[in-house]
Amino acid sequence: MPASAYQQLEMRYRRIGLLSEAGAILHWDSAAMMPEGGAAARGEQLAELSAISHGILTGPEISDLLADAMNESGLGDWQKTNRDLIYRQWLRATALPEDLVVRHSMACSECENRWRQARADNDFQHVLPSLELVLDLTRQTGAAKADKLELGLYDALLDEFDPGQRSADIDVIFNDLGNWLPGFLEEALACQAEKRNGEPLPGPFPVATQKAVGMRFMKALGFEFDQGRLDISLHPFCGGTPDDVRITTRYDENDFSSALMGVLHETGHALYERGLPESWRHQPVGQALGMSMHESQSLLMEMQVCRSRDFFTYAAPLLRETFKGEGPAWSEQNLHRLNTHIERGFIRVDADEVTYPAHVILRYQLEKSMINGDIRLKDLPGEWNDGMQRLLGVTPPTDTLGCLQDLHWYDGDWGYFPTYTLGAMTAAQLFSAARVQQPTIVDGIRKGNFLPLLQWLRENIHSKGSSRTTRQLLIDVTGESLNADIFKTHLRQRYLDMD
Amino acid sequence: MPASAYQQLEMRYRRIGLLSEAGAILHWDSAAMMPEGGAAARGEQLAELSAISHGILTGPEISDLLADAMNESGLGDWQKTNRDLIYRQWLRATALPEDLVVRHSMACSECENRWRQARADNDFQHVLPSLELVLDLTRQTGAAKADKLELGLYDALLDEFDPGQRSADIDVIFNDLGNWLPGFLEEALACQAEKRNGEPLPGPFPVATQKAVGMRFMKALGFEFDQGRLDISLHPFCGGTPDDVRITTRYDENDFSSALMGVLHETGHALYERGLPESWRHQPVGQALGMSMHESQSLLMEMQVCRSRDFFTYAAPLLRETFKGEGPAWSEQNLHRLNTHIERGFIRVDADEVTYPAHVILRYQLEKSMINGDIRLKDLPGEWNDGMQRLLGVTPPTDTLGCLQDLHWYDGDWGYFPTYTLGAMTAAQLFSAARVQQPTIVDGIRKGNFLPLLQWLRENIHSKGSSRTTRQLLIDVTGESLNADIFKTHLRQRYLDMD
Repeated sequence: MPASAYQQLEMRYRRIGLLSEAGAILHWDSAAMMPEGGAAARGEQLAELSAISHGILTGPEISDLLADAMNESGLGDWQKTNRDLIYRQWLRATALPEDLVVRHSMACSECENRWRQARADNDFQHVLPSLELVLDLTRQTGAAKADKLELGLYDALLDEFDPGQRSADIDVIFNDLGNWLPGFLEEALACQAEKRNGEPLPGPFPVATQKAVGMRFMKALGFEFDQGRLDISLHPFCGGTPDDVRITTRYDENDFSSALMGVLHETGHALYERGLPESWRHQPVGQALGMSMHESQSLLMEMQVCRSRDFFTYAAPLLRETFKGEGPAWSEQNLHRLNTHIERGFIRVDADEVTYPAHVILRYQLEKSMINGDIRLKDLPGEWNDGMQRLLGVTPPTDTLGCLQDLHWYDGDWGYFPTYTLGAMTAAQLFSAARVQQPTIVDGIRKGNFLPLLQWLRENIHSKGSSRTTRQLLIDVTGESLNADIFKTHLRQRYLDMD
Repeated sequence: MPASAYQQLEMRYRRIGLLSEAGAILHWDSAAMMPEGGAAARGEQLAELSAISHGILTGPEISDLLADAMNESGLGDWQKTNRDLIYRQWLRATALPEDLVVRHSMACSECENRWRQARADNDFQHVLPSLELVLDLTRQTGAAKADKLELGLYDALLDEFDPGQRSADIDVIFNDLGNWLPGFLEEALACQAEKRNGEPLPGPFPVATQKAVGMRFMKALGFEFDQGRLDISLHPFCGGTPDDVRITTRYDENDFSSALMGVLHETGHALYERGLPESWRHQPVGQALGMSMHESQSLLMEMQVCRSRDFFTYAAPLLRETFKGEGPAWSEQNLHRLNTHIERGFIRVDADEVTYPAHVILRYQLEKSMINGDIRLKDLPGEWNDGMQRLLGVTPPTDTLGCLQDLHWYDGDWGYFPTYTLGAMTAAQLFSAARVQQPTIVDGIRKGNFLPLLQWLRENIHSKGSSRTTRQLLIDVTGESLNADIFKTHLRQRYLDMD
């Protein structure tokens, strides 16, 4: 029997999936292993893999196959969803004229280079013309996609990073959170000053010991070292493939906490990838959901679990033993305080759980306004500083510490920022539901048994792949769509009610 | 102006070359980095890359492009050679019916598994039926290629590993060497017993120190660590790409010499890859020649250079210092003796420079006879043992130490074995010419300055890519085709005339 149209689409996606896995390992290698002199050739190798995938996805026969598959009977639910996801990917891939893709990509490369200089020199004007061009081409890209996907301009960009996410929903949630945060931050800082300030730990902490303890916790959380690796890279990330998940970190000999919490964060990403449904391995329906769900898995592990007081009941004796720590600074309570320390700051990537959403809400509001033409790029530094004052109560002394700090916009990633905080809120909501649905989870964390948690995540999140939308999955699992109150409750409990 | 037929072929080969580079890094990763659980997915990724390359190479338009390119005027010499090499690759790629490729590949996998068991159990009968099938399908494969390439059956197999090499030439050389070796071995062993036996070095030698000293010598030989890496794998090899050459080794804490000489051997391969002409990067004419020339580059570095007495003038003080060695065992003379120790043995991969050719000649004669149907497979163990007695004066007590020791035949690699010894002889001939043409080479080696040697190799071998055949290149550089007398002279000087 010849393959049906749907089956032929699946066969093509299996090939795309294998190429994408090959590319993922090569990306990891570029960051973790490759000698500097290999960079140019690597860029060409990856571009060739992308070109081949793009060719398969946009081949002339695909539109007929999709049309036939739409009318195909006898498909199961996952197959139907898979077909619909393939259709959306095809719409996206064919939305853009090739010359726009090329011009956009070139503009981003040029702008990224100028941004490095501008950031080093604190000179926003230096990058402004390039950023104007990137924004213009990003809007053209968004418009072409918006047209095909029947979405608004900003939503078409957002949809690339977080399929199904809509700015109308985010507006409601971020307005709520943004209004509440400044007052809460004030309270939480006062509480910290009064009764939760931690005593610093004396270093140094040798890298080999940090790595060993990181691996020990990774294993405890459920990371399988015969299906993955831990290595070093300048910018920590989770890469590789579901069967070969590779996370990276970087070590600071004066502070083991940054690498350790980074490792646990990436482990959350890794467990998600590893838990995706194997029988749908290379199909869109078998992939992880968008960035907000992915970030929810890393932040659930890092913020909800591994910075909780319960975690330190298990972890404190182990850390003391490993680092030969003695005295009150190594107590459960103090380790917990150190790992939940909060502070107003200028830099997003250094921010803590409480201030991070303020950084994100600022960027979300600004990028939406820039895409929609409501503010001009030349006014960005001023708008940035006003927003920082309003949301965080600080004004960056330089643009380097302000609107030049993040690569995203300069590299064409518009619509990415909100997913960080949507992820943090989703994490709080999922973990809140998990604790109720499976009461052994919290007790397990205190004892270093993370299996009940992992099983809950596998069953409720990981194994679902992309068989339903982020929004629907959250409703299925927690009974409601994203609710800022749950995140607020989490912050209140941790930063006001705890000693 | 539209691209000419020849230019279109070049464009396709650029794509094939990039895919092949991607595959090379993934192969390296499989051996050096990949967790065990990633193996199945990796196999699928690599198969997909191969399938895409095969598709480009055998696309329906290629025969027309080749026909047009054959009549294209205005091509330079390298372009013409490149076109002809593309034509040969196309002939090879299209020679085989797809079902034969699949059956052959499956038979080899099955036979490899049986071979592992048979070798462990010393049970040749266990693998015999599988090997019969592999041989049968290998002969069919060879016959199909022989027909297209207008070659004899065995030569068609050999041509896959060493393009242009012919068994009629090898017969002459190997008969000569095979008749001479047993007597020479007798003499050399007597000489060693009388006056060149080395005093063993006291270990252990920490792995980190071994790695550091290996890297130091690699750098001295010309390996660029911003264009390559040194790592660990079970079976040492040189992989990666010309811009990102990756060699591996394995360490034995009781003997630094095995890892060190292995590293220097692979460095020879690496320098060849690195020195290939950059402007022909992904074209067949820009690639390394076949296995015998590649092996000549590693053996020139290991055997001709780094096991020479001159090398230890430079290396001995360095090794003493690094390993904190004291006493007469660490003298130049003793280190040289230890690194040129010879011994009759059963196992090829443990053999030294003198006995290795005997192992290879045996396998060459046997595989040619089996391919041509002159001996039956069931008689292989007996024929093996007779040959070992004749060539090396020893009889393996088991088949595990005899005809079951090497994977090659069981995995379908027929026609590979002779290239090892052709490489060793080529190395001797090239180094002999190099010393005459550039007298500063030997003095440089004594002082740890390998630049004169590297420059000679770059200019005479590496930069030539595949612009001429192995045979022609050897004639161009040394004035004659492969001459066994030069290799014999080298062995005589080292093993009879030296203290």
